[in-house]
Amino acid sequence: MRIDIITVVPELLESPLNHSIVKRARDKGLVDIVVHNLRDYSTDKHRRVDDYAFGFAAGMVLQIEPVDRAITQLRSERTYDEVIYTSPDGERFNQRMANRYSMCENLIILCGHYKGIDHRIREHFITREISIGDFVLTGGELPAAMMADAIVRLIPGAIGDETSALSDSFQDNLLAPPVYTRPAEYKGWRVPDILLSGHQAKVEEWLHQQSVERTMRLRPDLLEDEP
Amino acid sequence: MRIDIITVVPELLESPLNHSIVKRARDKGLVDIVVHNLRDYSTDKHRRVDDYAFGFAAGMVLQIEPVDRAITQLRSERTYDEVIYTSPDGERFNQRMANRYSMCENLIILCGHYKGIDHRIREHFITREISIGDFVLTGGELPAAMMADAIVRLIPGAIGDETSALSDSFQDNLLAPPVYTRPAEYKGWRVPDILLSGHQAKVEEWLHQQSVERTMRLRPDLLEDEP
Repeated sequence: MRIDIITVVPELLESPLNHSIVKRARDKGLVDIVVHNLRDYSTDKHRRVDDYAFGFAAGMVLQIEPVDRAITQLRSERTYDEVIYTSPDGERFNQRMANRYSMCENLIILCGHYKGIDHRIREHFITREISIGDFVLTGGELPAAMMADAIVRLIPGAIGDETSALSDSFQDNLLAPPVYTRPAEYKGWRVPDILLSGHQAKVEEWLHQQSVERTMRLRPDLLEDEP
Repeated sequence: MRIDIITVVPELLESPLNHSIVKRARDKGLVDIVVHNLRDYSTDKHRRVDDYAFGFAAGMVLQIEPVDRAITQLRSERTYDEVIYTSPDGERFNQRMANRYSMCENLIILCGHYKGIDHRIREHFITREISIGDFVLTGGELPAAMMADAIVRLIPGAIGDETSALSDSFQDNLLAPPVYTRPAEYKGWRVPDILLSGHQAKVEEWLHQQSVERTMRLRPDLLEDEP
């Protein structure tokens, strides 16, 4: 799998893409993540890629030409499953999307920045607009890094113990049960006895009950969703 | 304002906290962001902070003791408005939360990692559990960086042109209107004439109409929310 990320702040992505699971998956050759500096596609002598927004008093907008050049170049080299733009008004990213994208061959993620990108880019080059949530960030770099993390950890072999991802929240439309580790007692706060009982079948049953109970209490909407 | 982030992968936060708006706000003294390596609070000679989950076949869990030590230490030094834990089953982060937190004095963000954190930490030390969305990440570091970005950019003085943040999506429960910049025509795709007309009052009206139209089409739920 290959993910191309196009950004005006490539430096910002350095540490998220070079640590932990994402680094390991890249080192193992499970995913190739290529970060492109949008300025490399500018024809301006100062490598400028933004300009004032028509009709607005404030805020800069990414120009269409460098984005066109970047995406056209990449598309001439391989076929992309999706050209994603990270935008707060896009479709909400979720675990199902992460599952689906983890099976793709090639993805482009264009990171928004400043006030946004020229709307013609969204109309003519973007195949999917994805939002991380109802809040505004300086740019789409952290959402891109986050999507990469959520997707990459689902590629078989990316996390050491593959059974771990299967019991994560949302994979079965249930929240994860509470987890505990040693010591069994700390300042008088005890781990539930059942977890120390050694009766694995009863433990599994309790964990499932806890998952269902937590989901009903905290996120009943998940139980109404189609799986 | 001060934000303390507690993590087992401090390296991962390096580039997000040292570029763009967050860096500028730190340099200007508008926010102090201190990253703590949880291992510094371990009493184990190998600086271990995780152990096997009781009752689970797979996955590691952050232990209560180092987290207790880290939070207790910080709390002895100043008063915190909130001790936040980033978890996929927490309350959904949104712009209203970002607005509210941007007016706080001191925040702690504890990043989850591995399979999760000992549930007793959540019961006894955490005052607020926040989720970025319905998906699973390797850790809470990117959500922490993202919350910091969303919060910090709202501190007066953090972004150059303060009118820019006010016209962002969600600040008025409306999505932002489409934005355009030069050239006015590119490959036959033209910027809407109204934006080039110079009639600022008509432009403003059009922008507002576009905001409302986009919100009704893409996110009608926002119009039902209490402002």
